[in-house]
Amino acid sequence: MRKFTVREEFLALKPYVPGYSIDEIQQKYGLAQVIKMASNENALGVSPLVREAVIRHAASVFRYPQDGSPRLVAALAALHAVPPERVVTGNGSNEIIDLMLRMLVVPGRNSIVCCAPCFSIYTIQGQIAGAEIRRVPLSEDFSFNFDGMLASVDDDTRLVFVTTPDNPSGYCPPRAAVRAFADRLAAKAPDCLLVVDEAYMDFADNEQEASLLAARDLPDNAAFLRTFSKSWGMAGLRLGYCVLPPELASLFCRARMPFSVNLLAEEAGLAALSDSAFREVILQTTREGRDSLARGLVCMGCAVWPSAANFLLFKPQVPAGACFEFLLKKGIIIRPLDSYGLPEHLRVSIGNPQENAAFLAAMRAAVSGTSRS
Amino acid sequence: MRKFTVREEFLALKPYVPGYSIDEIQQKYGLAQVIKMASNENALGVSPLVREAVIRHAASVFRYPQDGSPRLVAALAALHAVPPERVVTGNGSNEIIDLMLRMLVVPGRNSIVCCAPCFSIYTIQGQIAGAEIRRVPLSEDFSFNFDGMLASVDDDTRLVFVTTPDNPSGYCPPRAAVRAFADRLAAKAPDCLLVVDEAYMDFADNEQEASLLAARDLPDNAAFLRTFSKSWGMAGLRLGYCVLPPELASLFCRARMPFSVNLLAEEAGLAALSDSAFREVILQTTREGRDSLARGLVCMGCAVWPSAANFLLFKPQVPAGACFEFLLKKGIIIRPLDSYGLPEHLRVSIGNPQENAAFLAAMRAAVSGTSRS
Repeated sequence: MRKFTVREEFLALKPYVPGYSIDEIQQKYGLAQVIKMASNENALGVSPLVREAVIRHAASVFRYPQDGSPRLVAALAALHAVPPERVVTGNGSNEIIDLMLRMLVVPGRNSIVCCAPCFSIYTIQGQIAGAEIRRVPLSEDFSFNFDGMLASVDDDTRLVFVTTPDNPSGYCPPRAAVRAFADRLAAKAPDCLLVVDEAYMDFADNEQEASLLAARDLPDNAAFLRTFSKSWGMAGLRLGYCVLPPELASLFCRARMPFSVNLLAEEAGLAALSDSAFREVILQTTREGRDSLARGLVCMGCAVWPSAANFLLFKPQVPAGACFEFLLKKGIIIRPLDSYGLPEHLRVSIGNPQENAAFLAAMRAAVSGTSRS
Repeated sequence: MRKFTVREEFLALKPYVPGYSIDEIQQKYGLAQVIKMASNENALGVSPLVREAVIRHAASVFRYPQDGSPRLVAALAALHAVPPERVVTGNGSNEIIDLMLRMLVVPGRNSIVCCAPCFSIYTIQGQIAGAEIRRVPLSEDFSFNFDGMLASVDDDTRLVFVTTPDNPSGYCPPRAAVRAFADRLAAKAPDCLLVVDEAYMDFADNEQEASLLAARDLPDNAAFLRTFSKSWGMAGLRLGYCVLPPELASLFCRARMPFSVNLLAEEAGLAALSDSAFREVILQTTREGRDSLARGLVCMGCAVWPSAANFLLFKPQVPAGACFEFLLKKGIIIRPLDSYGLPEHLRVSIGNPQENAAFLAAMRAAVSGTSRS
């Protein structure tokens, strides 16, 4: 077999580990019904207006999309009260993270700083981009070690990544803490971009207090990532966006591959933004579900971390791996955290009330069942 | 305003120039109806089965897709009678082209070879990947200069790109010529991948004679790109695929960003593959339309090049720019070729019979009208 010389960065790659899908588990265990609480998808599914938009535009998918999704960019700019020149869209936030890294990191010369653990796409795409990856452990309580992150930054650091609320812990610092960090970073490394990934921000009890973007306080060295995969219920359509300094946005638009955001994603995104009724319900349902799941897990002796997101990090009194497998056989998929370096913890996405009840019932059985075995 | 140090490769970038969209031209000229024959989209629109699949799965888009589109990969492997381990999918062929370049090109060390002119994504993404771009002019008749391309290859060349049928000319060499080139390339540069972009191949009058992939004659140093954007009528959903050496496919799957192919693209792709009736009609309609447009253009004195694709390259007897603008004001968008370095030529996508007739009528007026002005 012919051998090709592949770049070292790729040979050394540890790939992203996605959660199981419903189909996989149905097939593996021969189950008729499977509940998925593994990937932080929307607990109430798709907004009726999004579904209608997809159906309405189904006959148009032979056309290329309009490059750069200009109508959606205008709507997002209005939503956040920023000029459209500061907004870019991508094929999920992933594409945006990747292209920012490629634009700013000279392979073999520059570094990036992020937490350990963190969303693995930062480090995987950072490695592909040829960056030195500097990882700063979270504190014991999963809060950010801002001092440690700042200490890791030097003149050759091009990007610093912060996820808030954080994944997988749900930790969310007040926005003043993020602002202070951005200012200290600007003073120490004027040429370094702070990427604030707010994928889960709208689930926070008080978004204004938690988000610089929501408070319209935008440091000039910061980029804010948001996604339609979570609260907007469009994970399958792949749509993320970023509010960032205008000169970077302009370069980003020139460098992004044409048509990377598909036609239905733009139409559905516009429909989602217009459906404020559905949005109110999903945010309310998720917050209530989060409280009820946390109470339930605490009652059965699990350690549960405070979360501002649509998931909970917890540590059962029984081995996490066995607990995960037990739930799986009952047809409930949650997320093991080995790939985050947290093999004793588990993460559960907030579901709808029925899913939450089924999860708590199965957990009760798991905690008693697996502790006896 | 804060300045960020952006990589030189990005600052020097000449971005991709997409065709106009129908919306843009409707707004610009205040037209109720606009015909688009600019982007080689499907002349008959969306297959009924694709439309149904999109509608059927509209309520599922809150879920992430299954990573790597395994059901679609299996169907494509069956279609081409290759093992699934040789098939990868992407967010359009663009994503595949980009990731192949990133996997194989060490920035500042390696080169790629392609034709001039060629599909600009090869050179844009090659530049971003840090490759030296070696461009070999097409022959006068738009055929490939295989000898010249081979002469441009050295030990540090990692990829050679060939589009067949070629864009924008429609030129299509017999498959034996591509096979001979692949073999000579393997002998000269064993570590170089030949990327054969067959985006338009199924429109060829005799696909078996023109395509190594269709003939199941796969050189072990070649990768074959195909897309659902053209004959399958799914440009807006973004879906491309590649049949490539299995070890590269395996690395590709590890390195590709998760979920880059959206959920509806996979479902629609499966539906498209099942709709053989629609496919027969679209291939027949396009071939007939190509013949009739070519005859019509020749009759009004245009030079027209033989095409195996769903578009025609032609050179009017009047200035191409004025001709393009004249058609635009009549509500017909075709493709100027300045960005291909062919300012005297135009490219028209084959439309449905009504669109073809409207185009020929407008062209007759353009040829007489603009020649008098």
